[in-house]
Amino acid sequence: MEKENSLNFTKMGGLIPAIVQDAASGEVLMLAFMDPQAWDRTLATGEAHYFSRSRRTLWHKGATSGHVQRVKEIYLDCDRDTVLLKVEQVGGAACHTGYRSCFYRRYDGGDWRLVGAPVFDPKEVYK
Amino acid sequence: MEKENSLNFTKMGGLIPAIVQDAASGEVLMLAFMDPQAWDRTLATGEAHYFSRSRRTLWHKGATSGHVQRVKEIYLDCDRDTVLLKVEQVGGAACHTGYRSCFYRRYDGGDWRLVGAPVFDPKEVYK
Repeated sequence: MEKENSLNFTKMGGLIPAIVQDAASGEVLMLAFMDPQAWDRTLATGEAHYFSRSRRTLWHKGATSGHVQRVKEIYLDCDRDTVLLKVEQVGGAACHTGYRSCFYRRYDGGDWRLVGAPVFDPKEVYK
Repeated sequence: MEKENSLNFTKMGGLIPAIVQDAASGEVLMLAFMDPQAWDRTLATGEAHYFSRSRRTLWHKGATSGHVQRVKEIYLDCDRDTVLLKVEQVGGAACHTGYRSCFYRRYDGGDWRLVGAPVFDPKEVYK
């Protein structure tokens, strides 16, 4: 057991990247960022909270869509400046576009090919 | 097929995060950053290149240790500002500490617990 448990928020101006992976399938769902408040709220609630870089506010993932992320495990990297969340993705899709994963385009011969199919219609979820 | 294929390097001052996942096991190995040169070198060589934030230079992953990453697939996220690389990790370990993944600590009851075991001894690899 390691005794020192602080995260290094200094490299990115107060933020750390958080990789989000489906706990069951291993699929990488998204990348987001946490500030200390988002980290604390995630631990306190068991649901993923991030810092929205566009809105400059705390972002409770799924608060609008209902597609919250229940955090099953959290891992820390060697430099203590990145975390990996293994989550249960309620609603089946992490991406605001309706795709299961935000990584729904694959590089293929110099271009990006859509892979997979949307799980929900954003127009129905974000009314 | 999407025609527009440019990445958005503007959000992080010329860098995009690259999530690196083991193509066979699905294990998340590390997070690194790419500038346009690292992106171009990765495409040209088929081996992962990053931008080292500490050394401020192009970083051919594995050039010192021999533990290069052969890129099998590349995915782009919804905002076009993050990529996901699925790689074959030569040597079996991505982390400079000798662990298979950089994410070798799991949050457990308010502290970080070491999980897994090192694949190599850094003192033997980085002489």
